[in-house]
Amino acid sequence: MATPTVNAERLNATLEALGRIGETPEGMQRVAFSPADVEGRQYVLGLMQAAGLTIHTDAAGNIIARRTGQDANLLPIGLGSHVDSVPSGGKYDGALGVLAAIETISTLNDLSRVTRHPLEVLVFTNEEGTRFHRWLLGSRAMAGLWEPEDYNAVDTEGIGMADHMKAIGGDLSRIGEAQRKPGELSAYLELHIEQGPTLYRTNVPIGVVSGITGRAVYQVTVKGMANHAGTTPMDARRDALLAASRLTIAVNTIVTEEETCRAGTVGTVTVRPNAMNVIPGEVELGVEFRDINMGRLDDADKRFKQVAAQLADSTMTEIEVQQLELGQSCPMGPRIQEVIAESAHRLGLDSCSIPSGAGHDAQAMSAITESGMLFVPSVDGISHSPKEYTRPEDCANGASTLLNALLILDDG
Amino acid sequence: MATPTVNAERLNATLEALGRIGETPEGMQRVAFSPADVEGRQYVLGLMQAAGLTIHTDAAGNIIARRTGQDANLLPIGLGSHVDSVPSGGKYDGALGVLAAIETISTLNDLSRVTRHPLEVLVFTNEEGTRFHRWLLGSRAMAGLWEPEDYNAVDTEGIGMADHMKAIGGDLSRIGEAQRKPGELSAYLELHIEQGPTLYRTNVPIGVVSGITGRAVYQVTVKGMANHAGTTPMDARRDALLAASRLTIAVNTIVTEEETCRAGTVGTVTVRPNAMNVIPGEVELGVEFRDINMGRLDDADKRFKQVAAQLADSTMTEIEVQQLELGQSCPMGPRIQEVIAESAHRLGLDSCSIPSGAGHDAQAMSAITESGMLFVPSVDGISHSPKEYTRPEDCANGASTLLNALLILDDG
Repeated sequence: MATPTVNAERLNATLEALGRIGETPEGMQRVAFSPADVEGRQYVLGLMQAAGLTIHTDAAGNIIARRTGQDANLLPIGLGSHVDSVPSGGKYDGALGVLAAIETISTLNDLSRVTRHPLEVLVFTNEEGTRFHRWLLGSRAMAGLWEPEDYNAVDTEGIGMADHMKAIGGDLSRIGEAQRKPGELSAYLELHIEQGPTLYRTNVPIGVVSGITGRAVYQVTVKGMANHAGTTPMDARRDALLAASRLTIAVNTIVTEEETCRAGTVGTVTVRPNAMNVIPGEVELGVEFRDINMGRLDDADKRFKQVAAQLADSTMTEIEVQQLELGQSCPMGPRIQEVIAESAHRLGLDSCSIPSGAGHDAQAMSAITESGMLFVPSVDGISHSPKEYTRPEDCANGASTLLNALLILDDG
Repeated sequence: MATPTVNAERLNATLEALGRIGETPEGMQRVAFSPADVEGRQYVLGLMQAAGLTIHTDAAGNIIARRTGQDANLLPIGLGSHVDSVPSGGKYDGALGVLAAIETISTLNDLSRVTRHPLEVLVFTNEEGTRFHRWLLGSRAMAGLWEPEDYNAVDTEGIGMADHMKAIGGDLSRIGEAQRKPGELSAYLELHIEQGPTLYRTNVPIGVVSGITGRAVYQVTVKGMANHAGTTPMDARRDALLAASRLTIAVNTIVTEEETCRAGTVGTVTVRPNAMNVIPGEVELGVEFRDINMGRLDDADKRFKQVAAQLADSTMTEIEVQQLELGQSCPMGPRIQEVIAESAHRLGLDSCSIPSGAGHDAQAMSAITESGMLFVPSVDGISHSPKEYTRPEDCANGASTLLNALLILDDG
């Protein structure tokens, strides 16, 4: 049998259409649970209906769209990703994985081909975690990995998890019903843009993901003393922003000069009172470190806390470092890595093994089924940005590789 | 005649009562035009009515409360300050000047004493300028010093000047009517807390203000590139927050190590997109420098722009430095400085000459009448903070000095 490929034009048309939902001059604003997110989900539901899938929304708001297989005794193979975006993000992150999964179904429909296994297209709730600072919310609910903080999460506007879940058809009071046990799925496959520059720079169309990075997330509170910016002598100040600025630079230095771990970023800043004529009295920073080696993350943790304590002393501030999250690094299923490489090979596409610096739903899903991911190139390595772009041919190559990996798994 | 003093208990009771309006665990939130500001103004209007004053609100929302003098041919003497606060501020800044002015009237009422000059208690709109980043809004309207930006100002919630003015009884369309010409007042006196540590540290109860500092205010926009915090190699980043942090430290260094001018502060930070897993793409900083010597402010301006250009180069960002405001330094009336010192002397209170590091309504009023200010000690020099505190006896000393300065001016 010839190696099938997806309908590239149809796939890219759906990417464009979903990409207009939540689009603004400052980028994609399809933040989880927002009206744009709900509208994006509606668009995807329409595609699923047109593809003849049987649709169910679970208690965590995950969309599960099923296609019957030839053998009712086989466990379903899942294909999916998410449609929520970061604020001012791009239109490929997450969306490509969902739309390629649907395109895979549509291609099978075109070919009148029914797989042995049932298939499921999975759209996971709030992957990015922007809303509550709680990542992978839907996939962790499915994998039974919710933590107490997830249940009680309240966003910056004071809206809690229960209300947000209701907005997308979920139900916090029944959230346990979203959990699926190990053995309910036979595998999970996810196509995603790389979001880094490696594939684009080396001109390799398919990345076979070896594993997903570990990630330590911190909330840092710097407490100084708010005071009048015109009347307080420079030597009498306890300026929380000045201390926070030094700490922001230290996060960079710990990674770049000291080579403690692979990446470190200060992404969020809140200043109080944040008035032009007041010395900042309190600053909160959102900080993260990443590495695939958890030992290196531990080194970064120790060094970061040491530097924070030194800075508190030298700037006459109090600095509290609270670890919000420690995401374990997660290897991808070895058999699935081989299957993805074989699929690319059949399509005549080069591939390489690549670690993922970003977290993905596949890491939660790997707790309940063998999981794998494939990456396609991000132009200039840009993502989480309005400039995020993956070429149409790369999107199609990724979807065709997803399709054939699915068929190899189905045969195996 | 004996040197009169105010009713300290009554003054401090009104300070406590006004201090409960807008009070929160995070400090005073009586930001201009807010419901708390309106309520604070209502409280003051009640006191004015009880003191028998004739009340008028001008088109800029300034409250003008008048007491008739013996000689209708004499020009009124103004006494005043403001009731709006910075966010998370204290209960003495501004409030003391207004309530001491009213207490001065009440004491004259108690003494059945009518001055030769008419008296006016003045409550100026939006002194702090938090709402629009437009300071001294009411006093500048009275002095005819509005700028085009004042008319068109819109706050961060998208509400414009006209709507805010309406909320406090002003009328933007008639704003010119708030203007008073040089020669309509014979003098303006303002009591205020020092907001710095000098009087408190040296244990001097009364500061005679020699002049008000000049102030240069900047909005700085740092543009880098938003990108994924997990997948973007450290050496490929253009992190706007990292550049902004270096610039924040430079503002401090320019003042402390390079001794360019007296004070420099970064008070506000806005980060975009401000998400934990995204490298900041754009950061705005609110920066100010202060000095009584305008030449030194010019030196700071040049050095600041030079450092910003160097940092833009070294961090691969664009840094735009826009001067929002250049407030000229302003000497206080020499005759009024003498009168305040003489008043303190009559009360047996030590006084000293002191420059003001903060801007005040008196600097706008000095454009239309001879103006003077007196300071009382701020405990630990703290203000624009929930910990702002001035001892009841210092508040009373200030009000009594204000009363006797008024009487000396009235006689002179």
